[in-house]
Amino acid sequence: MAQDSLSQVFAALADPTRRAILSRLSEGAATVGQVAEMFAISAPAISQHLKVLERVGLVERTTTAQWRTLTLRPEPLDAVAEWVDHHRRDWDQRLDRLEAHLDTINEEEYQ
Amino acid sequence: MAQDSLSQVFAALADPTRRAILSRLSEGAATVGQVAEMFAISAPAISQHLKVLERVGLVERTTTAQWRTLTLRPEPLDAVAEWVDHHRRDWDQRLDRLEAHLDTINEEEYQ
Repeated sequence: MAQDSLSQVFAALADPTRRAILSRLSEGAATVGQVAEMFAISAPAISQHLKVLERVGLVERTTTAQWRTLTLRPEPLDAVAEWVDHHRRDWDQRLDRLEAHLDTINEEEYQ
Repeated sequence: MAQDSLSQVFAALADPTRRAILSRLSEGAATVGQVAEMFAISAPAISQHLKVLERVGLVERTTTAQWRTLTLRPEPLDAVAEWVDHHRRDWDQRLDRLEAHLDTINEEEYQ
């Protein structure tokens, strides 16, 4: 299992339940109980998913009086967006260069 | 192991060697040998990584005469970018609403 932080964030997002938890939290903070209610899986399983999300910094757990509140921390998504956008852009630029190259060939052919 | 396609793409990206292979291919198509030369890991390990990338559609393998060429297919990154941007945007909008709400409170306080 790769241990660099970007790999860990990608791995944390590679699960539909964890992404659904983040989607719920992107609408507002929630208690552990509120999140658990949304899913037909066991409390230990939810707890395990939350641990993964907390470890990579996507979820923050705060305790106020008897309430444990979960908040989305979107900062780790910045590195993911940066990597993905960079590789989509590289590809677009390559296509642009190829297109320009083909245009040049066409012009030379018809001169 | 989750089997939905978005989870599979996230999982494929959750490895530094696989991301490095994609980075190499984002600069241009390459043969399997050229990709293998870049990494100090065994040929079977490279082959395994390439299989993962092909399975999710991020790499296409074509065979021309004796050459096996690898090409980046960035389309699966669209769904990743969409998910990530959506969740970053949701969060930004929540912060904007919170800020607007605090402004309203402040205005009421000082009237």
